[in-house]
Amino acid sequence: MTTNAKTTPYVYSFKDGDGKNKKLLGGKGANLCEMTQIGINVPPGFVISTEACLNYLETKDQDLPSELMDEVQAHIKILEQDTGKIFGDEDNMLLLSVRSGSALSMPGMMDTILNLGLNSSTLPGLIKQTGNERFARDAYRRFIQLFGKVALGISDEKFDKPFDSIKKREAITEDTDLSADHFREIGELFLDVVHSETGKPFPEDVYEQLQLSVKAVFGSWLGKRAIDYRREFKITPDMANGTAVNIQTMVFGNMGNDCATGVGFTRNPATGENVMFGEFLINAQGEDVVAGIRTPKPVHKLANEMPQMHVELSALSDRLEKHYREIQDYEYTIEKGVLYCLQTRDGKMNATARVRTSLEMSNEGLITRDEALLRINPEELEQLLHPCLDPESKQMPVVHGLPASPGAASGKIVFDADRAELARDDGEKVILVREETKPEDIHGFFAAEGVLTSRGGKTSHAAVVARSMGKPCIAGAEGIEVDVEKHTARVGNITLHEGDVITIDGANGNVYLGEIDTVPPKFSTELRTLLDWADEIADLKIMCNADTLEAATKASDYGAMGIGLCRTERMFNAQERLPLVIDMILAKDNAERQDALDKLRPIQRGDFKDLFKVMSPRPVTIRLLDPPIHEFLPSEKQLEQEIEHLECLKDTVSGVNDLMNTMHLLKRQADAKEIPKPFGPGGRELVESAIAKKQQMLIKVRELFEVNPMLGHRGVRLGITYPEIYEMQVRAILEAAAECNKEGFGVCPEIMVPQVCTRKELLWVREIVDQVHADVETEYDIKLDFKFGSMIEVVRACMRAGRLAEIAEFFSFGTNDLTQSAFSFSREDAENKFLPLYEENNILQDNPFETLDVKGVGRLMEIAVDWGRKTNPDLKVGICGEQGGHPESIRFCNHIGLTYVSCSAPRVPIARLAAAQAKLTEDEYFPE
Amino acid sequence: MTTNAKTTPYVYSFKDGDGKNKKLLGGKGANLCEMTQIGINVPPGFVISTEACLNYLETKDQDLPSELMDEVQAHIKILEQDTGKIFGDEDNMLLLSVRSGSALSMPGMMDTILNLGLNSSTLPGLIKQTGNERFARDAYRRFIQLFGKVALGISDEKFDKPFDSIKKREAITEDTDLSADHFREIGELFLDVVHSETGKPFPEDVYEQLQLSVKAVFGSWLGKRAIDYRREFKITPDMANGTAVNIQTMVFGNMGNDCATGVGFTRNPATGENVMFGEFLINAQGEDVVAGIRTPKPVHKLANEMPQMHVELSALSDRLEKHYREIQDYEYTIEKGVLYCLQTRDGKMNATARVRTSLEMSNEGLITRDEALLRINPEELEQLLHPCLDPESKQMPVVHGLPASPGAASGKIVFDADRAELARDDGEKVILVREETKPEDIHGFFAAEGVLTSRGGKTSHAAVVARSMGKPCIAGAEGIEVDVEKHTARVGNITLHEGDVITIDGANGNVYLGEIDTVPPKFSTELRTLLDWADEIADLKIMCNADTLEAATKASDYGAMGIGLCRTERMFNAQERLPLVIDMILAKDNAERQDALDKLRPIQRGDFKDLFKVMSPRPVTIRLLDPPIHEFLPSEKQLEQEIEHLECLKDTVSGVNDLMNTMHLLKRQADAKEIPKPFGPGGRELVESAIAKKQQMLIKVRELFEVNPMLGHRGVRLGITYPEIYEMQVRAILEAAAECNKEGFGVCPEIMVPQVCTRKELLWVREIVDQVHADVETEYDIKLDFKFGSMIEVVRACMRAGRLAEIAEFFSFGTNDLTQSAFSFSREDAENKFLPLYEENNILQDNPFETLDVKGVGRLMEIAVDWGRKTNPDLKVGICGEQGGHPESIRFCNHIGLTYVSCSAPRVPIARLAAAQAKLTEDEYFPE
Repeated sequence: MTTNAKTTPYVYSFKDGDGKNKKLLGGKGANLCEMTQIGINVPPGFVISTEACLNYLETKDQDLPSELMDEVQAHIKILEQDTGKIFGDEDNMLLLSVRSGSALSMPGMMDTILNLGLNSSTLPGLIKQTGNERFARDAYRRFIQLFGKVALGISDEKFDKPFDSIKKREAITEDTDLSADHFREIGELFLDVVHSETGKPFPEDVYEQLQLSVKAVFGSWLGKRAIDYRREFKITPDMANGTAVNIQTMVFGNMGNDCATGVGFTRNPATGENVMFGEFLINAQGEDVVAGIRTPKPVHKLANEMPQMHVELSALSDRLEKHYREIQDYEYTIEKGVLYCLQTRDGKMNATARVRTSLEMSNEGLITRDEALLRINPEELEQLLHPCLDPESKQMPVVHGLPASPGAASGKIVFDADRAELARDDGEKVILVREETKPEDIHGFFAAEGVLTSRGGKTSHAAVVARSMGKPCIAGAEGIEVDVEKHTARVGNITLHEGDVITIDGANGNVYLGEIDTVPPKFSTELRTLLDWADEIADLKIMCNADTLEAATKASDYGAMGIGLCRTERMFNAQERLPLVIDMILAKDNAERQDALDKLRPIQRGDFKDLFKVMSPRPVTIRLLDPPIHEFLPSEKQLEQEIEHLECLKDTVSGVNDLMNTMHLLKRQADAKEIPKPFGPGGRELVESAIAKKQQMLIKVRELFEVNPMLGHRGVRLGITYPEIYEMQVRAILEAAAECNKEGFGVCPEIMVPQVCTRKELLWVREIVDQVHADVETEYDIKLDFKFGSMIEVVRACMRAGRLAEIAEFFSFGTNDLTQSAFSFSREDAENKFLPLYEENNILQDNPFETLDVKGVGRLMEIAVDWGRKTNPDLKVGICGEQGGHPESIRFCNHIGLTYVSCSAPRVPIARLAAAQAKLTEDEYFPE
Repeated sequence: MTTNAKTTPYVYSFKDGDGKNKKLLGGKGANLCEMTQIGINVPPGFVISTEACLNYLETKDQDLPSELMDEVQAHIKILEQDTGKIFGDEDNMLLLSVRSGSALSMPGMMDTILNLGLNSSTLPGLIKQTGNERFARDAYRRFIQLFGKVALGISDEKFDKPFDSIKKREAITEDTDLSADHFREIGELFLDVVHSETGKPFPEDVYEQLQLSVKAVFGSWLGKRAIDYRREFKITPDMANGTAVNIQTMVFGNMGNDCATGVGFTRNPATGENVMFGEFLINAQGEDVVAGIRTPKPVHKLANEMPQMHVELSALSDRLEKHYREIQDYEYTIEKGVLYCLQTRDGKMNATARVRTSLEMSNEGLITRDEALLRINPEELEQLLHPCLDPESKQMPVVHGLPASPGAASGKIVFDADRAELARDDGEKVILVREETKPEDIHGFFAAEGVLTSRGGKTSHAAVVARSMGKPCIAGAEGIEVDVEKHTARVGNITLHEGDVITIDGANGNVYLGEIDTVPPKFSTELRTLLDWADEIADLKIMCNADTLEAATKASDYGAMGIGLCRTERMFNAQERLPLVIDMILAKDNAERQDALDKLRPIQRGDFKDLFKVMSPRPVTIRLLDPPIHEFLPSEKQLEQEIEHLECLKDTVSGVNDLMNTMHLLKRQADAKEIPKPFGPGGRELVESAIAKKQQMLIKVRELFEVNPMLGHRGVRLGITYPEIYEMQVRAILEAAAECNKEGFGVCPEIMVPQVCTRKELLWVREIVDQVHADVETEYDIKLDFKFGSMIEVVRACMRAGRLAEIAEFFSFGTNDLTQSAFSFSREDAENKFLPLYEENNILQDNPFETLDVKGVGRLMEIAVDWGRKTNPDLKVGICGEQGGHPESIRFCNHIGLTYVSCSAPRVPIARLAAAQAKLTEDEYFPE
C-alpha cells in the first residue's frame, strides 16, 4: 500500500465540509454539508471524499487505507455523541445509510445501502426500541438484500425468488400485507442466500459491514454501468473523478402512519409551473417511492393527511430554492412527525419547464437575465421543437399511464434494452416496454425513441432518465401486463408482440396502437421572450440554411435573421425540373445548353422571389451551383439496368400490362410529357426514344465519372467550365430582386461562390456578376444592391483569404467540406469505416462532422478570418456548415469573431441561445 | 498625340548608351554600346529605346512622336560626321541596318532590315562608289524585299515568285550565278511587287524609309509571333517590355573576296571545349549564313583563307568572353580586310557544354564557383541523365504524347504487364503500351524499357511510377487507340501488333516506328565536381525516393544523401508477393492475417536490408503502408469478368487450348503454385477453386468500395484498424537494421507514418514501434538507433504540427496529397477535366502537382515548420512529394528552412544544384 504524505482529511462532517466543493465531496455530500450548515434539518452524518476513492482505486489494494478507517471511526464517534446512539449497540443502535455521490449527478448509476448496522444482535434491540417487530424485521431484510446486492454483488433475482415464493405461499400480492413473521422468515432465507452465494455467512460486525460497503461504493466507480454512463455523457475526469461516500444516520419513514417519505421538486419539472411538486408515501422507506412498488400520492394531498408537515415541507422547498437559486429536487422523510431532508440537488426538468422557470425566476428577481440564459442547455430546446401527436388524429388510446416525460414517438415494441440496441443498429425505431426500468437498462434508453413502463411513478427511474434525455416516457401504465420472457404484453384482450408498432404520447400518458402522425411543435411565448433577451446579448447573428419556402418560413418564425445558405441545386432536383437540368447536361452545344437554361431561369427566379419575400428585408445568401453535375444523373448501374429493361420491353410490347408499365415508366422518368392513350400506336417508338435518351445519359455518366467526386469537377470549377450556368443563376437572382423591389419588398441578395480556391476564380465570377448586374439594372430601370462573397470550404482559400477578401465582401465557411479536406476524411467513407473505431479508441473525441474540430479546422478558420480582415476590416464572415448549429461550435465561432452562423431551421433557436451564452462566457473560453 | 514631359532621351548613341541597361536598350543594343565603349570595332550607330516603343504603342497613334524623329535625325547627323557619309546622298550615301532587340533574346522573333538608304537616286552612286554594279543591285533588291516584308507587310512569296521566274528563265540554280543585269531586272520586278501590293510606289525618301522601318519594328512587339513566343516561354513585362531599335552603319561582307561574314561562339556550345567555334562565308551578307543558301565553312579554315583576319577574330573572341565572363555568340563582318563585330550575346548551349564551360571558366578564374553554379539551369541536367535518341536520326514521329518521364527507349510492344514480364524473361526488350496503368501493373514497369499510355497526364500513375524508376514514359498519347483485348493499337491507319518495335522519347513525347539508336547518358566528372561544389554550399540535403535496390543504387551514384521516401507498398505489389498480400486482405480472422504477415515479414526484411546496405551509413526513411488496401485487389469489373470467364471455362474445359489457357491463367494469377501436366485431371477443380477465390475477392472489393478513395481508409487509418500490418513492417525494418548492424553496416532507419492527422494516431503507432524496438533489441542483443516521424500530407497535420512535433522526430511533407486536399482537386480528375482550362485561362499559372503552390500549400508548410520547430527546434523537416525535385519548389523549401528534399533518383543531381542556387539567391527571393 502506498502511503503518500497526506495533509488533508479523507472524511468531512456535514457540519464542516465545504458545500461548494463538489469535486471533493461529490454533489450529494456537498449539498448535505451545505444544508446542515444553513440550518436545515438533515440527519447527521459525514462524507468520505472522492480523493479517498481515487487513492483506494489507484493502489489496487484489497484494503481501505488505514488512515481512512481511523478517520471514519472518529466521525462515527462524533455521530454517536450527536445522536446519543451507539454504532453496533444491542439496545441503542446507530443505523446508517451509505450512499455514493460523485461531483456530477449520475442518477441511478451508483448504489445505496440502508439500515447498515443491523445484525442478529442489534435486530432484537430495534424490535424492542421501536416496539414494531414488523418494521424492524422489514428493515433487516431490506438491509440484507441491499448489502448483498451492493457490497457482495448478489443479483436481485436471488432475493426476489424466496421473497416471491413466500408471497405466493401466503397468497399475498401487496408487500404491506406481509407480517412480521413473514419478514422474519424472509430475513432468514436472505441470510441463506448470502451464505450460499458468497460461501460465507452474512457479516455480523458492523464496522466490517461499513468497510465492505465503502469499498463497494468506491469500486462501483469503475463498474461497467458507471463507465458507460460517463462515456455516453462525455464526463471526463476533470468534470467528475471518483465518488464520495455519504454516511448518514438513518431516519425512518416506515415506522408507522405518522411517518412518510417523499421526493419533491420546488417547481413542477414538467411544466415549470411555480407550485411545489412531488409524491409521498405514508409509512414507507425512500426506495419504495423510487422503485414504484407502491403508487405514491401527489404532494398536495399531504396537506390533508399531515397538514403541519405540508406547511413545513413548503417552507423547506422555499428555503432550498432561494438558497440555491435553482429548482431543487429533494428527498425527505418524516419520522414520527419530524421532517428531515435527506438530499437535495438541482432539479432536472424538461425544456418547457427549464424555459418557463428561467423566465419566471428572472422576473421574480431570483436570478439575473444572464443567469436565466445560462441555465438552459441550448440542445434542450430541441425538445420544444419536436413534433407532437396530431391532435386531429381520432385514434383512441388503448391504455393510459403517467405522463412522465413529454413528447411523442412511434416505434416497434422491444422488451429489453439489449434488443433495443440491436434493433436500433438495424435502423429500426423502437419503444422500450418494461415493467420498470433499472440503471442497467440505460443503453436501452439511448437506443429507444421512447419508454413505456407498467409500474412506477413520475419520479421512477424510467421517468427521471427519460426526462433527462428529452425522450418521451409513460410510466405506471398499469393496464399493460408485460411478460418479458415471452416477449409479449397484454392490454385487455390484445396481445402485443415484439415488433408491433405503438405510439406513445409522453405529454398525456396515452398509448396507441400503430403509428400516428405528428404535428410540428409550438414555440412558446416564454421561449420567444428568452430568445429575444439572447439576441440582445449575442454578437453573432443567426442565419438559416434554407432552400425552400417552407424551410424559410419556419426559420423566420424561429427568429432567423436571414438566409445564410440557399443551395440552388436543391431547386434543380425538384421532380419537374430535373428533366430540364438533364437536357442542360446533355446539351451538344452552347445553344442547346442555353435553351435548357432559358427554361430554368424563370423557375429559379420564382424560387428566389419566394425566399426574398418571406425574409424581406433580411439578407438572403444564395450559393451558385455546387455539386458535380453527374449528381443530377442516375448512376451508371441504374442506367444500364433501365436500358436493359427497356430493351426487353421493346421486344415484348405485346400485352396490356407491359405497355402500361412502359407508359408508367416513361411518365415517371418524365421523358414523355403526354402519355398516349393505352394501346396507342407509337408505344414501341416511345420506348426506343427513351432508350436513346438513356443511352445518351449513360455515355455522359461515363464521361463524367470521377475517381474522387468530392475533389472533382464541381463548384466554381463547374461555373468556369460552363459560365452560362452561373450567368443564368445570377440573372435569376438579380431579376428576382428587381421584381421584389418593384413590388415593394426590401431585398438584400448575397451571391456566394462555392469551392473557391484561387483569387482568379472569384474574379472570373465577379466579372459575370457585374455584367449581369449592369444588364438587370438597365432592363428594370432600378438601382439594385447586392453583396458578393465566397464560400471558404477549400483549405487553400483559407491560406489565400487575404487576397480573396479583395474581391469578396463576405466569407462563409463551409465546414463540412473544410473538415473533409482538413482531415482527408471522406465523410461517407469515414463514418462507415474507421470513424467509429477512432471514437471508440478516443483517437478523436468527437465526430468532427458534428462538432467543429476546433484544434484543426478551427485554426484554419482563425487564420482565414485574421488574414481576410487584415485586407478588409469590415469583412462579414459566417459559417454555414452543419456545425453552425452546434453550441460548442458556436462558442468557437464567437471566439474568433465571426459575424454570423447559419444553420437549419430547427437549430435556429438553439443557435440564438448558444450565441448569447458564448458571449456571456467568452472570458472563460480557452480553446487549445 | 500625348506629349508627356520627357526628361530622358529616346535615342542613345553606341558611344553613350548604358551597356548594362538591357531593359531600356534591349539586349542587342546594350551590347553594341558596351562593345563600342570598350573599343571593339563596331560599325557606328545608335539605339532607339524600348521606352520609345512603349510610348508609341500606348498612344495608338499613326505617327512616331516628333521628338523621337528629331532625336533620330540628330543622331544621323552624328553618324554622318563619324563616317563622312551622308544619309540619302547620291554620291556618298550612308546605308543603315535597322534591327529590333528586346531585353530578352527572342531569336527569330523580331525583324531586320539591311541596306536602308538605297533608292533610285543613291543606287547609281553606290554602283559608282563600289565599282561593283552586281553588288550594288544585289544590295538594292535585298533592301526592297526586306523593307517590303518588314515595313510594308508583304509576304516573302510575293518576291520569291519573280526571283525564281528569272532564275528559271535563265536556267540558273545558284544565286551567285546571277549577274548585275539579272539583279537589275529583279529589282524592278520587286518595285512592281511593292507598288501592286501596297497601291503606292516604293518610298524614295530615306527618312520615310527609316520612319516606316522603326514603326514596323515597334509594331512587331505586338505581332502574333512575338506574343505567342512570350506566352510559351512565360516572358512577363517585368522581364522584357517593348523592343528597342538598333540603327547601325552598314558594312558589307559581300563586296568581294576580301570580304566575309560569319557567326561565332567563344567556345564549342555542343561540347564546351575551349576552342573558337563558328562558321563563315567569303563574299556574303550575314543573312546568307543564317539562311543556309550557301554552306558556310568552319571557322578554323579562316586561318588558311584570311590568316590575319583569323588572328583578329581570335582576339575578338577572347576579348568578348573575358569582358562578358560568359560564352559569347557573336556576328561579324569583314569588309575589305577590316573586321567588324555586329552583335554579341550570351551563347546558348546544351547541358554538356554548360557544365564543362562552367567548371573550366571557374578553374580559369574567369568566374567564381558560385557563378559557375548559378549559370546552369538545373532542369538542363536531366538531359545528361537519360539516354537520348541519336541526334543523327532523321526519322519522323508517328504520334505525340505528353513527355512524362525523360529518356529514350526502343522495344517490342506488349499490351499487358504479364506479357511484359514473360517477354523480359525471354530476353526481349519491351515497351509497355496501355490505355492507362494501375498499381497491379507494377511488374510490367520493372520488365519494360519504357511505358506509353494513351490516357492520363504528367502526374498519372504511369508517369509517376515511371519517373520514380527513371524509365522513359509518354502519357496521354491520344493519337493511339489501344485495344487490350485484341492486343493491337491503332495510330491513324497503322495497326500495331504485339511484338512490333517502337521507340519512345520521353524527353519530348515523340513515338517512332522501329528502333532508333540511342546515346547513353554521361554523368561526367565535370558534373560530379560541380555537384560537389553545390553540396558544399547548399543548406538543404538531397535525399531520394527509392523503393528498389536498383533505384537506390542509381540515386546513391547520383549523390543522394539517403533515402527520404521508401514506399513499402511498391514492395507489396511485386508479383510473387501480391498473393500473400491478398491472403492478408482476405483473412477471416487475426490468425489468418498474422499467418500471411509472417510470410511477408522476411521478404520485407530482405528488401530493407538491401536498401540499408546500399545507403549505409546514410539514413533510410521507410513509410509504413499507405494506400487503401483495395488497391491491391483487381477492380470489381475485372473480377466480374474473370469470374464470368472462368465460369465459361468450367463448363467447356474440353479442348486443348482451353485447358492450356486455364492453366496459364491460373499460373498467372498465382493461385496454383504447380501446374498439373496438360490434360491432367483436376483441371475443373482448379478452375472451381479459382472461381471461389475470385468470388471471395469480389466480396471484399465490394465491401472495401469507397466513394472518395483519396480521402478514405488508408495510411495510418489502416494501421490503426489492422495494427498487425504496421507491427509486421516495423519489425521487418528493425530486424533488418539489427542484421545489418551485425554484418558491420552502419544503419540509420527512419520510420515514417503516412496520413497522420491527429496526435493520438501518431502516439498509437509510436507505442507499437517502441514495443517492437524493445523486442528486437532483446532478440538481437543489440542497441538500435532509429528515428520516428510523421508524413505531413494531411492539412490538419499542418495545423497540429506543434503537437505532432512532441512525438515525431521528423516531418516529411507529402506535397502530392497536401496539394490535393489544399485545392480540393483530385489529381486524377483535375488533370483530365478542368486543369487544362485553368492553365489556359491563366487561373492557375502552373500545375500545382508539378510546381509547388507556394501561395497556398506553401503557406501551410510554412505554418507547420514554424509551429513544429516551436515545439522542437531540432525538428528535421523535409519534403518527399513530386515537387521535391523541382528547382522552383526547392527554392521555396530552402526559404522556409527545410532540412532536406527527397526526389526520384534522376532528379537528385538537379536538386543538388537547385539547392545550392537556392542558397546563393536566397536574398533575392520574396515569395508572395
